[in-house]
Amino acid sequence: MPTELPNERALRTPGSMELDPSGGEGVAINETRKLIASDKVEGTTVFSAAGDELGTVHNFMVDKVSGQVAYVVMSFGGFLGVGESYHPLPWRALRYDRQLGGYVVDIDKSNLEAAPHYGAGEDPFVDDEYGAKVDAYYRTAPTA
Amino acid sequence: MPTELPNERALRTPGSMELDPSGGEGVAINETRKLIASDKVEGTTVFSAAGDELGTVHNFMVDKVSGQVAYVVMSFGGFLGVGESYHPLPWRALRYDRQLGGYVVDIDKSNLEAAPHYGAGEDPFVDDEYGAKVDAYYRTAPTA
Repeated sequence: MPTELPNERALRTPGSMELDPSGGEGVAINETRKLIASDKVEGTTVFSAAGDELGTVHNFMVDKVSGQVAYVVMSFGGFLGVGESYHPLPWRALRYDRQLGGYVVDIDKSNLEAAPHYGAGEDPFVDDEYGAKVDAYYRTAPTA
Repeated sequence: MPTELPNERALRTPGSMELDPSGGEGVAINETRKLIASDKVEGTTVFSAAGDELGTVHNFMVDKVSGQVAYVVMSFGGFLGVGESYHPLPWRALRYDRQLGGYVVDIDKSNLEAAPHYGAGEDPFVDDEYGAKVDAYYRTAPTA
């Protein structure tokens, strides 16, 4: 796991979902703006740091009171919902890569496989303690 | 515009999207939890304070860096996307009503009609100043 950010990463705000400005082509106005629509994030492809396609953004878990996005839930594997697994990730673990046209998860694949996840039809967030488990995992297995 | 909250409103956290606990039937576990899924909010019916059906939740506008939901966008009117108008609202302006089975907008209809809105195919959030206009409107036309 790298202890220093690659050079290109220094160009964007840490933990932001802003597009990667390292492409050198100049960034379009609608890519630099401050806000992004939830339905544009949902369904977007998620890649590993190595550029492999992992899955898609399934939804967000939002704090009812504050309106803060607590987790971005990725769906991995499966076909038409059968066999899919859902991995909630802290917002800061994602960045947008303009060249890939999707989000990149800043953790390695083995850490992601071992992370808290659930199957289709399961809804562990019914238990408010589940979020604390996710938080604890990503504190001890920090983003790369 | 009432200057005091109705009695039932004192039971929920101000500005929260938690379900209204005033129904007296006891609140199910999955309705009291802290987090809500974005795709459960999207598409949910929105009612006026008087109980009239206004439209649905279209999407959220999320701050890319912080992950804070800045606005919940309502879609009103129209059919199959033709003639629809989109009204961004501060998160705090919505509450969930368990008996209606949808969100209630805590502003009156004339204030809502005069509020910043846009049509299908328009995307005023391209301009970062648009959010400031929305904020200014709801500061001077406070939620009921």
